[in-house]
Amino acid sequence: MIIIMDEKASPDQIQSVVERLLDNGFDVHRSTGATQVVLGVVGDTHNVDLRDYEVMDGVHEAIRITDPVKLVSRTFKPENSIVKVGKVEFGGNKIAMVAGPCSVESRQQIKDIAAFVKKTGTHLLRGGAYKPRSSPYSFQGLGEEGLKYMREAADENGLAVVSEVMDRMDIIPALKYVDMIQVGARNMQNFALLKELGKLNKPILLKRGMSATLKELLQAAEYIMAGGNHDVVLCERGIRTFENYTRNTLDISAIPILKKLTHLPVISDPSHGTGIRDKVAPMARASVAAGADGLIIEVHYDPEKAMSDGAQTLYYEQYEQMLSELKIIATAVNRTL
Amino acid sequence: MIIIMDEKASPDQIQSVVERLLDNGFDVHRSTGATQVVLGVVGDTHNVDLRDYEVMDGVHEAIRITDPVKLVSRTFKPENSIVKVGKVEFGGNKIAMVAGPCSVESRQQIKDIAAFVKKTGTHLLRGGAYKPRSSPYSFQGLGEEGLKYMREAADENGLAVVSEVMDRMDIIPALKYVDMIQVGARNMQNFALLKELGKLNKPILLKRGMSATLKELLQAAEYIMAGGNHDVVLCERGIRTFENYTRNTLDISAIPILKKLTHLPVISDPSHGTGIRDKVAPMARASVAAGADGLIIEVHYDPEKAMSDGAQTLYYEQYEQMLSELKIIATAVNRTL
Amino acid sequence: MIIIMDEKASPDQIQSVVERLLDNGFDVHRSTGATQVVLGVVGDTHNVDLRDYEVMDGVHEAIRITDPVKLVSRTFKPENSIVKVGKVEFGGNKIAMVAGPCSVESRQQIKDIAAFVKKTGTHLLRGGAYKPRSSPYSFQGLGEEGLKYMREAADENGLAVVSEVMDRMDIIPALKYVDMIQVGARNMQNFALLKELGKLNKPILLKRGMSATLKELLQAAEYIMAGGNHDVVLCERGIRTFENYTRNTLDISAIPILKKLTHLPVISDPSHGTGIRDKVAPMARASVAAGADGLIIEVHYDPEKAMSDGAQTLYYEQYEQMLSELKIIATAVNRTL
Amino acid sequence: MIIIMDEKASPDQIQSVVERLLDNGFDVHRSTGATQVVLGVVGDTHNVDLRDYEVMDGVHEAIRITDPVKLVSRTFKPENSIVKVGKVEFGGNKIAMVAGPCSVESRQQIKDIAAFVKKTGTHLLRGGAYKPRSSPYSFQGLGEEGLKYMREAADENGLAVVSEVMDRMDIIPALKYVDMIQVGARNMQNFALLKELGKLNKPILLKRGMSATLKELLQAAEYIMAGGNHDVVLCERGIRTFENYTRNTLDISAIPILKKLTHLPVISDPSHGTGIRDKVAPMARASVAAGADGLIIEVHYDPEKAMSDGAQTLYYEQYEQMLSELKIIATAVNRTL
Repeated sequence: MIIIMDEKASPDQIQSVVERLLDNGFDVHRSTGATQVVLGVVGDTHNVDLRDYEVMDGVHEAIRITDPVKLVSRTFKPENSIVKVGKVEFGGNKIAMVAGPCSVESRQQIKDIAAFVKKTGTHLLRGGAYKPRSSPYSFQGLGEEGLKYMREAADENGLAVVSEVMDRMDIIPALKYVDMIQVGARNMQNFALLKELGKLNKPILLKRGMSATLKELLQAAEYIMAGGNHDVVLCERGIRTFENYTRNTLDISAIPILKKLTHLPVISDPSHGTGIRDKVAPMARASVAAGADGLIIEVHYDPEKAMSDGAQTLYYEQYEQMLSELKIIATAVNRTL
Repeated sequence: MIIIMDEKASPDQIQSVVERLLDNGFDVHRSTGATQVVLGVVGDTHNVDLRDYEVMDGVHEAIRITDPVKLVSRTFKPENSIVKVGKVEFGGNKIAMVAGPCSVESRQQIKDIAAFVKKTGTHLLRGGAYKPRSSPYSFQGLGEEGLKYMREAADENGLAVVSEVMDRMDIIPALKYVDMIQVGARNMQNFALLKELGKLNKPILLKRGMSATLKELLQAAEYIMAGGNHDVVLCERGIRTFENYTRNTLDISAIPILKKLTHLPVISDPSHGTGIRDKVAPMARASVAAGADGLIIEVHYDPEKAMSDGAQTLYYEQYEQMLSELKIIATAVNRTL
Repeated sequence: MIIIMDEKASPDQIQSVVERLLDNGFDVHRSTGATQVVLGVVGDTHNVDLRDYEVMDGVHEAIRITDPVKLVSRTFKPENSIVKVGKVEFGGNKIAMVAGPCSVESRQQIKDIAAFVKKTGTHLLRGGAYKPRSSPYSFQGLGEEGLKYMREAADENGLAVVSEVMDRMDIIPALKYVDMIQVGARNMQNFALLKELGKLNKPILLKRGMSATLKELLQAAEYIMAGGNHDVVLCERGIRTFENYTRNTLDISAIPILKKLTHLPVISDPSHGTGIRDKVAPMARASVAAGADGLIIEVHYDPEKAMSDGAQTLYYEQYEQMLSELKIIATAVNRTL
Repeated sequence: MIIIMDEKASPDQIQSVVERLLDNGFDVHRSTGATQVVLGVVGDTHNVDLRDYEVMDGVHEAIRITDPVKLVSRTFKPENSIVKVGKVEFGGNKIAMVAGPCSVESRQQIKDIAAFVKKTGTHLLRGGAYKPRSSPYSFQGLGEEGLKYMREAADENGLAVVSEVMDRMDIIPALKYVDMIQVGARNMQNFALLKELGKLNKPILLKRGMSATLKELLQAAEYIMAGGNHDVVLCERGIRTFENYTRNTLDISAIPILKKLTHLPVISDPSHGTGIRDKVAPMARASVAAGADGLIIEVHYDPEKAMSDGAQTLYYEQYEQMLSELKIIATAVNRTL
């Protein structure tokens, strides 16, 4: 940690800061420049709240120089991590595809879609059983019944399954049915949930919060990894901006940035990231072009009849058309699909 | 719901939209203007996803004309709701004060602070037992032990207690100790939690999410009220903006807007809303001047030693000074303190 | 325009709104639904401020159903517009490339870079003569001298030139030297400038403001076109978000959205959009994959010595490498480069 | 400037950074900590672009430790600056009031309003002659004619006049008629304009840009002061956020923050800051409660007939009622009105 004093900081003010640092068990190196004093703080400052010092009289700024994350950081693990779910590898040369409906709606619906997903060469099935909805009066998902249907449909087609849990209480039922547990955007900072997931031996798909910074996303992943579970895949799914044409603004630049900061796989969700069906394929292409390790896509045989998020759900033929475009783009970034 | 067609929408496109509406059980009134066709949709459209129609060819915009919320809306209950917690009334003429430390740190700490809070005429004690922290390596609170200490301290001083729960699993222990349950900003859209709180007979303090719109805050409150619990107090606590001098930007205008949209009490949290000690009093004054029904303030006998959020915590004398300023401002808005 | 009344709006409130509308020369069609009254307003409402009605008692919402823009809208001109600048066509099948330094620094510098740009098959040279800098103490550009050097360098290499003007007073000198005038992000709503540019017979490159919505960008273009100048190219260059790893967040989704809303060409500026050299190529690839009609890229023989924006400027070999990747991606979207 | 190297930075990477710093004429102090190397840079780094170093391999972060502003900073001028315009003092104990219509609409309109303004004890008249409007088809103001009417109306009532210029070309006509020149939010970073205003001997009212940080606002003020004109008043007028109930979100916390960072007077514009008439008074009260040095308010004898911004314009009686509330609040912050 470095503390930069104001240009006009008085000797007393500087002394107060130094004393507080010493009190808290740190060593202090004082450096007097042409215009101001800079204090270098020696010791483990990971848990220091910078603001504690910034509100002191005469302090210009406190800066943390050590990374707030350890386990997720590429500094400490330079090579890419690969997370395996069934036949799918996230983080390898091949781009990982995940597809399925927004919600599991019935045994038959998920069966049909699973068969289609399989046919396209996609090996991981998505589908929501517990649906987070803004209004209490909207469809809230089939719950455990939905998970059961999805498991059956996946098993019939040799697919693996990823589905979202809403809080700690949903974990036990989910463990029976799913191969990968999704943490939704609204739960990215549900720390009680993250800690619990850290204890599991099950891959986690962690979505970025709607207005979360990348640093906060990495800290959320650190929560899971700190518990011992290192199989975490990060997912960019759009952030809130002023723009209203799209539901969210898919932050494509998050992909190359995250790939630099962390060894964890990074995928993109252009369905939620745009909220508009005809924007899904362009943004899927852009994601792969920017270096995404995979995509998660909503697809349905009849999006107009979907019980949730139909407007952002692809028709079967659109999904297949998109895959053929992605194959070309993958070659431009030395990947396969 | 109203559907506005594009100026160039073809008769076929219009027909498709009409048919889909009829299919879904609605009646349709078609109105042909000078430039475009507008479809009035008759029936209960509460659960329609507007985007389902907006992605159809030839549709310019779909607009919901009925309110997404019912129970929270002032339209349906014009008079102010009053929520009672111990001796405190939120939503009455008297401005409700809540004060205490960020975290319960020890039996002695919360005792001392409770005695001070009582002395100032404040009757509701705040304090965190489960702390949501961005880093897994930071102090995470004393848990149930903390709630117990807080209850003791409150009882000794005739105070009521408000404290935050992190998810559904924390509710049972909290019920034993607290008089009002707080939902933190990160949990504003934890719908599983909100539904559970809706079943309780215990007042809820619902904080606005960091990047939530006011409509989303009202929908979150609707979740609780739809379950049968009508004792909800809303709390503005700062939103994320580009500005970095403050931790958040306290949205003072949310206060008069919420007061118009809902009958529920609205309070302000200038401690989290600014994150900086010397900005707490100015923003507390501003909140009352703008019509807040109450304030929740972090106070500690030694903020420099606080285990969390010390930088935004008031010294005792600052809290007392602030109260004396607020008394004057209250008169300007025909309130008492 | 449609005015939706509150569910509890009184007959008097409705009457007041109707009378105001009639007073203002509109016809009103009143439609009484199950829950509320909706007023359809007939007449030219382009210049009505919706808020004038929204603040009236009993009004729930006022909605404009006609597009605020005309000339830029694809509704009124379905086919793509092509804007020609020298040998370059924006909006055709071939992706248009623009490259050059951030600032013109000297006669020799721009000569060297122009020769390189030419060699890569790029035909339009960028370079700033008037530099908008946040600090008054930073390098402010060479002014007209810079434009002269750039013209010379371009002529020697058979290139066309695009450069930014800062306000109306810069137009006259710029006309002598440049083939396309750039409006910077900070000037997107400099309406006096836009009006003046509307009178010219010179293509305009209009950059999106840092926190502008796409609707505002289209309205800015409408200002230019309303004056008679229809040669406008739109440029996405990054918006301000909470994320600080990048200077801005390049909004790739703006590309397919704009392409749907307007017939004007849409290009992307990944240099300003990211502010970081090694993020430029990934975001350039993503832009083309999402359907951009062109790219504007900062390139310099020695970015480390560049007088401005060196951190986001490509080395020569990086630009060439990027072009070869883009060629592959262009085929995936049926374009050429 | 301080440069913090990555924990894993190689000796070669560190050497490259050191060499570049020396090349650029700086001295370097190298400090090797437990985990990483920190380079202290000695010399005038005001014009260094931090990103130039941040993109170098092995660099974690570059931090400017000197203030980017000088003349506006309270560090260098601790006592409040007072800016006088006619009988009005901005920055003194008395809260400065500015009032008038959004636009000058006619000779008679501005006369009537000036007389009212005078009657309330307000001494500075606002009114727009050049109007920045999002749509080219909206009323654009009366231009110089409007300034003339406003001058006449002010002279008849012994008032001073503040009005906005749109760019450098409007300055000459404005100088004849106005006592204070306003820079609008959209022009906060119109650097050509700011430089020109810096040469004048006329007070400037500088509005914060719609998505500008406070640092950027201070840098804009520095532009004016660097030219020699020290009579600058800053104005908070609302920032763009996700919230749509209000036109903008008035950032009340900007007031106490700016008052700490700069000696310049700081006023608030609750009319533009909310865009809604019945929110103006609550936010005016909040502004004064938070420490504003003044307010600028839109007022009109018939807001419903106003040619622009009627929805945010107060009726005469509302303005008078607001003044009486503000008088009480002023006493709570030891001010007068």
